[in-house]
Amino acid sequence: MATTRHNAGGRIPPHPDIRTIGLQQVLEALVDPVRRRIVSELYATGQDLACGTIDLPVSKSTATHHFHVLREAGLIRQYYAGTSRMNALRRDEIDEAFPGLLRALVAHRDRE
Amino acid sequence: MATTRHNAGGRIPPHPDIRTIGLQQVLEALVDPVRRRIVSELYATGQDLACGTIDLPVSKSTATHHFHVLREAGLIRQYYAGTSRMNALRRDEIDEAFPGLLRALVAHRDRE
Repeated sequence: MATTRHNAGGRIPPHPDIRTIGLQQVLEALVDPVRRRIVSELYATGQDLACGTIDLPVSKSTATHHFHVLREAGLIRQYYAGTSRMNALRRDEIDEAFPGLLRALVAHRDRE
Repeated sequence: MATTRHNAGGRIPPHPDIRTIGLQQVLEALVDPVRRRIVSELYATGQDLACGTIDLPVSKSTATHHFHVLREAGLIRQYYAGTSRMNALRRDEIDEAFPGLLRALVAHRDRE
């Protein structure tokens, strides 16, 4: 429903068109292990997750920064559901722009 | 022939077992565009290449550093052929350790 997925009055900036994102920016986002963990979690669950529900070994403000970098790199889409800031992996778009990359990176989740 | 592929009296340090290399180290090596260019070149030609034959937008000493990082990350194997330091992509080993990663990264060569 449109009412449960909204931008909460502009609190979240526009998301970039993934076709304008280069591999360099995507790799710079994914080279960070915390950010890769966020992406892996979204990939593994196959669901949108609120920021607070992903267990990360960093402070809340640092986590917010990491989510920001992922959003700017076109990897996640953020929206509000009530007061929760939700995160959705832009999986189909990423797979189309960078075939195989996501799977190659998250396949190694257990070894990290 | 063994005589054309040698370590030139220990001038090249031992290469790491790729099974001891984590995805983090591999990504830190490949996030650099110059290093990705080296790997893409080796991947595309399918041949071992001397350092000097790969066109790079950096000084010789910087290039040497990049080759060093790639060797330490288990991505290339270096050896001497006469006085030329040669570079071989450890493609089969990488593909086994990190399925799909190499192809996902070099497939975007033309877009860089």
